[in-house]
Amino acid sequence: MLAKRVHQLESSGIRRLFELGLKMKNPIDLSLGQPDFDVCDAVKKSAIAAIEAGKNRYTPTAGIPELRNLLSQKLKDEGVHTYKNVVITAGGSGGLNLALYAIADDSCDIYLLDPCFLVYPQMVKLVGAEAVFVSTYPSFRVTPERLAEAVKNREAELAQKGLPKKRKILLFNSPNNPTGVVYSRAEVQALAAKTRELNFQVISDEVYDVFNFDQEHVTWGEFDEQAIVLRAFSKTGGMPGWRIGYASAPTIVFDQMLKMQQFTYICINTPAQWACLTLLETDFSPMVQEYRSRRDLICSLLDQEGFKYERPGGSFFIFPYHGVSDPAEFNRLCVERELLVVPGELFSKKNTNFRLSFSAKPEILAKGVKILGQVAAGLK
Amino acid sequence: MLAKRVHQLESSGIRRLFELGLKMKNPIDLSLGQPDFDVCDAVKKSAIAAIEAGKNRYTPTAGIPELRNLLSQKLKDEGVHTYKNVVITAGGSGGLNLALYAIADDSCDIYLLDPCFLVYPQMVKLVGAEAVFVSTYPSFRVTPERLAEAVKNREAELAQKGLPKKRKILLFNSPNNPTGVVYSRAEVQALAAKTRELNFQVISDEVYDVFNFDQEHVTWGEFDEQAIVLRAFSKTGGMPGWRIGYASAPTIVFDQMLKMQQFTYICINTPAQWACLTLLETDFSPMVQEYRSRRDLICSLLDQEGFKYERPGGSFFIFPYHGVSDPAEFNRLCVERELLVVPGELFSKKNTNFRLSFSAKPEILAKGVKILGQVAAGLK
Repeated sequence: MLAKRVHQLESSGIRRLFELGLKMKNPIDLSLGQPDFDVCDAVKKSAIAAIEAGKNRYTPTAGIPELRNLLSQKLKDEGVHTYKNVVITAGGSGGLNLALYAIADDSCDIYLLDPCFLVYPQMVKLVGAEAVFVSTYPSFRVTPERLAEAVKNREAELAQKGLPKKRKILLFNSPNNPTGVVYSRAEVQALAAKTRELNFQVISDEVYDVFNFDQEHVTWGEFDEQAIVLRAFSKTGGMPGWRIGYASAPTIVFDQMLKMQQFTYICINTPAQWACLTLLETDFSPMVQEYRSRRDLICSLLDQEGFKYERPGGSFFIFPYHGVSDPAEFNRLCVERELLVVPGELFSKKNTNFRLSFSAKPEILAKGVKILGQVAAGLK
Repeated sequence: MLAKRVHQLESSGIRRLFELGLKMKNPIDLSLGQPDFDVCDAVKKSAIAAIEAGKNRYTPTAGIPELRNLLSQKLKDEGVHTYKNVVITAGGSGGLNLALYAIADDSCDIYLLDPCFLVYPQMVKLVGAEAVFVSTYPSFRVTPERLAEAVKNREAELAQKGLPKKRKILLFNSPNNPTGVVYSRAEVQALAAKTRELNFQVISDEVYDVFNFDQEHVTWGEFDEQAIVLRAFSKTGGMPGWRIGYASAPTIVFDQMLKMQQFTYICINTPAQWACLTLLETDFSPMVQEYRSRRDLICSLLDQEGFKYERPGGSFFIFPYHGVSDPAEFNRLCVERELLVVPGELFSKKNTNFRLSFSAKPEILAKGVKILGQVAAGLK
């Protein structure tokens, strides 16, 4: 009585950890992908005013024009080619769903940069496409050369099996989850030139755009007229539970994303849409400053405990090497001490790392990294 | 650069009408599937309190336990077998998405009772299944005999083509959109016995459960241990823009619906979940009384203009016969007079009817039906 697709999909390990954390009395939770601050008062007031004013009914499929226009202007200012085609989505995941349903099927290969957000491989299966994993260890950055090599290998593999070439999609993500890595302007520009040459359609997941510590956000949409750009308010506004974000896409794809929205999400929570008008006026720099100092802190804490890692330039994640031979035992001992971190294997074909979220108070970070040090030391 | 599936899907004609209506200055809008009342004050207050209290973060995938427990008790009281397995969904459509992704694929036939909600045939295509339409004209009720006959015909067709038998799913909907028809207790019981015999898996769309004018709501879930039951708060609470509803399902399906939620909706708008705790304490009888009197009114107005119809027992729709030979001209003339009704062909293989929503003030209903009478008379 079940669909075939369900047998290919794995439950989200993160959601399992999240639900495990809810059951613990007082866990040290460094596992989750949500900010530790609440929605700011002005944005709350704006949501409340919308509810009171009766803005509780359906909106157009693409979202309220007031919000779409502001976002369109914002994307134009950033140089995003497809700024005219903005759809309000149910967070970053909602945008990814619409994009993949619009463009991907079993005639596609979707290139994923390993490690990557754990929902990606599942979404690839859900739309019937095949994932091609391109390792980015140890720098967690793909180069144009490495991408070209991955394509060459994959196409040789297909040819060897007597299969036709497939349409190629790249799912790109900077600032990155789980590594915190941010690609420079020059890197994005060079990669976009290569993906055009290789005839890729690119989906650029930019949900951590505001969480850039060492540079302005670089959007793939500036260098690629065909790119689909995904953003979210969840992280920026401290409102992951509101389920709101946005996406822009070239017209031919955009039209189909709207069609998909009609049959799945219908529209996005109406009061949240109105509140995000206010969110766009918010100055995020104090928040970014706070997260930058936490990034500095987590790096120095990990240094003290002797962990190796790639220094994050954004998001609120770091992906250190655990350095032990038994990762399962490492994870088990962490849970036993009520410390939640996410095993690297949930993001990767390799199991040499773990994801720490530094979206937590400094004293929690210090406590957590101390325990990590003790656990790792005990296993060496 | 597009997925194959997009070419099979048609844009929602209703959403097009909705967007056409937004552009008209002062349309007489009898087209839309949303209640014309706002969220009640107590529920608004509850949403506002949630936002203020910082309930803006992710919830568990299935929803907050507080709301799930109340809904579980409610379903138990109604006799729904699967009451233990409640998931909060993004409205009725969200529940339908989770259900179909969990159970349906290209090895299934999904039986749709024609006329039906226009999203159903699109959703069937989206999950790769095939729709088998069973006409319910002129009573808009399927009988066990007619369903059995449809199965016989379909299976003969498959056999003739040398194809294997397919898994059978029935999508049932009472109170009904677009006809307003409500099945009696005896009818549901007899149908459920037949679908068990024929080995159907049933999805019962009960989003209009509260909108019953002549009897208590009869749930399919009382007569079928394997049924998936879909409900929504959108209509009941006047909050279609909040995107919240719920579903219950047998454990094996429920587990997969949760998995699908993890990769699509993640969770449902958090303040809306908290507010629905209050919604469940609301007495809906004055609202039902109001809609009952509108049902009576629309019937007498249609009588005056000489339209034939099946009297609705629930929802807020009626599906009269237009009685003209040129339905396209009928629709064009309505739009020209800024009157929005939905062409029957959007719900049906036939084009002999149109859907009127009586979710509008009495004076609007009177104005609208007057115009309908004039337009129809001019075409005879």
